[in-house]
Amino acid sequence: MTDYRKLWSDLGMDLEKHDRLTSALPLIYEEVYLQQPERPQAMEYFDLVVAEIHSLRIVELVEHRRRGGKVCGAFCVFVPVEIIRAAGAVAVGLCGGSQFWVPDGERVLPRNLCPLIKASVGARLSGTCPYFQSCDLLIGETTCDGKKKAWEVLGEYAPVYVMDLPQMKRPQDLAAWRGEIELFLARIEELTGCRVTPGRLAEEIRLQNRLRQALERLYHTRKADPVPISGKDALLVTQVSFYDDPRRFIDKTEALVAEVEARIASGQGVFPPGAPRILVTGTPMAIPNWKLHHIIETAGAAVVCEETCTGTRFFEHQVDETGRTLEEQLQALAERYLKINCSCFTPNSGRLEDIFRLVEAYQVDGVIYYNLQFCHGYAVEYYTVEKALKEQGIPVMKVETDYSEEDTGQLRTRVEAFLEMLR
Amino acid sequence: MTDYRKLWSDLGMDLEKHDRLTSALPLIYEEVYLQQPERPQAMEYFDLVVAEIHSLRIVELVEHRRRGGKVCGAFCVFVPVEIIRAAGAVAVGLCGGSQFWVPDGERVLPRNLCPLIKASVGARLSGTCPYFQSCDLLIGETTCDGKKKAWEVLGEYAPVYVMDLPQMKRPQDLAAWRGEIELFLARIEELTGCRVTPGRLAEEIRLQNRLRQALERLYHTRKADPVPISGKDALLVTQVSFYDDPRRFIDKTEALVAEVEARIASGQGVFPPGAPRILVTGTPMAIPNWKLHHIIETAGAAVVCEETCTGTRFFEHQVDETGRTLEEQLQALAERYLKINCSCFTPNSGRLEDIFRLVEAYQVDGVIYYNLQFCHGYAVEYYTVEKALKEQGIPVMKVETDYSEEDTGQLRTRVEAFLEMLR
Repeated sequence: MTDYRKLWSDLGMDLEKHDRLTSALPLIYEEVYLQQPERPQAMEYFDLVVAEIHSLRIVELVEHRRRGGKVCGAFCVFVPVEIIRAAGAVAVGLCGGSQFWVPDGERVLPRNLCPLIKASVGARLSGTCPYFQSCDLLIGETTCDGKKKAWEVLGEYAPVYVMDLPQMKRPQDLAAWRGEIELFLARIEELTGCRVTPGRLAEEIRLQNRLRQALERLYHTRKADPVPISGKDALLVTQVSFYDDPRRFIDKTEALVAEVEARIASGQGVFPPGAPRILVTGTPMAIPNWKLHHIIETAGAAVVCEETCTGTRFFEHQVDETGRTLEEQLQALAERYLKINCSCFTPNSGRLEDIFRLVEAYQVDGVIYYNLQFCHGYAVEYYTVEKALKEQGIPVMKVETDYSEEDTGQLRTRVEAFLEMLR
Repeated sequence: MTDYRKLWSDLGMDLEKHDRLTSALPLIYEEVYLQQPERPQAMEYFDLVVAEIHSLRIVELVEHRRRGGKVCGAFCVFVPVEIIRAAGAVAVGLCGGSQFWVPDGERVLPRNLCPLIKASVGARLSGTCPYFQSCDLLIGETTCDGKKKAWEVLGEYAPVYVMDLPQMKRPQDLAAWRGEIELFLARIEELTGCRVTPGRLAEEIRLQNRLRQALERLYHTRKADPVPISGKDALLVTQVSFYDDPRRFIDKTEALVAEVEARIASGQGVFPPGAPRILVTGTPMAIPNWKLHHIIETAGAAVVCEETCTGTRFFEHQVDETGRTLEEQLQALAERYLKINCSCFTPNSGRLEDIFRLVEAYQVDGVIYYNLQFCHGYAVEYYTVEKALKEQGIPVMKVETDYSEEDTGQLRTRVEAFLEMLR
C-alpha cells in the first residue's frame, strides 16, 4: 500500500485526526460487509473502493486538478452532474455518513440538527475528508432548512454555490428550476473557463443515463426470490456511485449485474427463499452509514429496495436524449430532476405512489421508514405514508436514529419484533 | 358575562376540553400581566381582549359569517392580509402559543417539531380554538420544513391553501412572489365570490399601513429610558393585532401610545432608569406564550424590542400607497412583504443589519436569542448572529425552549446570570 500521507498533507488535511478516522473503518467493514456469506465475486471492486476510499480516487482528483481541471462537490441528488462534467469538471458526492465528523459539525451547528448535515460540515471543518479538500466549489441546494442554512456557515470555510430548488411542482416551478439550472451552468462555466457545448452535454447526459440504468438493472435483480445480493451490498454500490469515475463504475456495476443475474438463473441467493423482504424508505444513507441495513439483515430479513436518495430516488427516470440544442437539453435536465419525489415538495404525493409501486414490484413484506433524527420533512411525511400503508394492510415501522451506536441494541430489538410480526 | 357555550357548541367545539383550556388562562394572566406595577391605563382594553379572547371577537366573526362573509386564518406575517380584507373577508392569526394544544398536535406530528406548529395543528384537531373553527380557509406558507409539511396533515381536517414563499431575494424571486400573490388573490376572490378592486385594495393597504405605523410608534416609545411600558405589554399589543378588528385595534393602540408618550414627557417608567435593556430576537411568540419576557422582566431587566415575527418583522416597512392599478398594488405588496428578513431566506444578511440597527436605536445592553425548539432556520442562523454581535462586544445569549414550564427554573437562572453580567 502506497503511503498517501504526502498527498493528504498537500491537501491541507489534519493527518493525526485523519488516522483516527480511518483506523476504525476496516474493522467495521470487516464485520458489516466481509463476513456476509455468499457475496458476489464482483463486489471485490467495491470492497477495494472502500478500502482505498481516501486514496485511489483522491489520486485521480489530484491528478485532474494538476492538469487544470476542477472538482465540484455536491450534497444532493438534485444537482445535475451532467453539467459539471460537460464543463470538464469532476463531480463528487460529499454527504457525511460518519459519527466521527458530528462533533466538529456541532462546533458551528446546533446539536439537534440532522447528523448528515452536521457530519458533512464537520468533515470540512475537521480537515479529515480528502474529497472536501479536493473541491474547488461546493454545490449546496435549498432542499431543507437545515442544509439551506448550513451552507451559509460552510460558506465561511469554502466556496459554496447554492441552487434554489422549488418547493412545489407546478409549471411555474419547473420553469424556475430550469432557470436555476441555467444559472448553474453559467457558474460552472465561470469556474472551469470552459464552455458547455450541446455535443459535450449530450455525451454526459448519455453517460449519466447509463449509470442510472446500471443501478436500475442491479435493483431489478433484487426482485428475485431468493434475493441474489444483500441490501447492504446494493446500498454500497449506490453509495460508491457518488464518488467513483462514472465509466469505471458502470463497467464494474454491469459486471456485478451479470454475475447476479446468473445467480438468479441458478436459483442462488444470499438469504433463504421466503426470507422477509423489506423496503427501506426515507432519508439517505451516506458511507459508512450501514447501521439499519446491518441490523435488518443480521436479523434474517433482506432489504430488497431503498426508496431513498441513496436508492431509487437517485437513479429512476432518465434524461431525454433527443435534445439537440442546449435549450432543449436544459429543459430535459430540469424535467428529469424535478421528477424526484423528495419530501421537500408540497404536496409530495408522487412519493406515496412510488412506495406502493416498489412494494408491489419487489414483493415487499414490510416497510421500514428510516428517518435521520431532526429531518422534519420525512418525519412529518411519515403520517401520510403510515396511514396509506396501514389502510392497505402493509406493515410499516418508523425508525428515527442518528449516526451514533447508542441506540443499536434498542433498534435491533424493535426490528426483530417487527420481523417476527411478518412471518 | 354572557354564556358563550351555545356559540362554541355551534362552532363544533369540544366544550369540556375547552373549559380545561380556558380555566387556566385567568390565573396565568393575573400573575404575568395584572401584577405588573405602573401599567398604562390604556392596557385595560388589551386585558379585556385576552379575558374575552374566545368570545367577543368570535361573536364578531360569527356575525360576519352569518351575513355571508368569509374568515381566513393565517400562520405567518408573509400572508398579505390586505388582499383578504379587500375581498370582504376577515383575517385572523392562528399561531398556537399554548402547551395545552401540543399533545393533540403530537397525535399526527413528530414530537421533535417546533411547539408552535404542534400547538397550531393541535388547536384545530382538539376543537378547542374558536378561531380555527370559524375559518373558511386556512392560509399556509412554505416558510419552514415543519410548517410546509404540517399543512399537508392539517389539510385532512380543514381546507388549506398554501402560498409558496421564495427562499432567496433575487429579482426572479420577487417576480415569483408577485406571481404567488396573484394566485392568492384569485383564490380569495373564488372563496368570497367578491372581486378585489383597486379602490378597495388601496383602502386596505392604507389601513394595514396605519396599523403597522401604530405599532411602530408604540415600539418607538420603548426607546426611552426609563422605558414607559413593559416588554410584556408591548408584546401583548402585537399579539392582539393578529386577532383584532384593525380599526378598533388602531384606535386603542393610538390611545395607548398617547398615554405612554405622556409618560415619557414626565419621565415616568415601569422600570428604574438604567435598568438593563434587552433585545429579544428569533422566533415568534404567540398568545399565551409570555414565558421568556416574564422571566426577563421579573428578573429586573426590560425587554425594549423584539426582532421577531411578533415584533419588528411584523410592522416594519409599509406598502407603497401610490399604486393606482391592481398591477401596481400587487407589485407594491410583493415588494413590502419580501422585505421581511426571515431565516427562511438564504442568505439572510438583512436580519443582521436589522439587529445592529435595533441594538443602536433601542440602546440595548444585551441580546437574548429566542429559539423555539427544533426551529432549524433560526437555530443555525444563531452562529452568524452570535459571531457578529460578539465581534462588536454586544453580549448575547441563546435560549432554546418550548411551551412547557419544565425548564423555567433553569431558564431563570441562566437569564439572571446573563443580566448580572450586563450590570
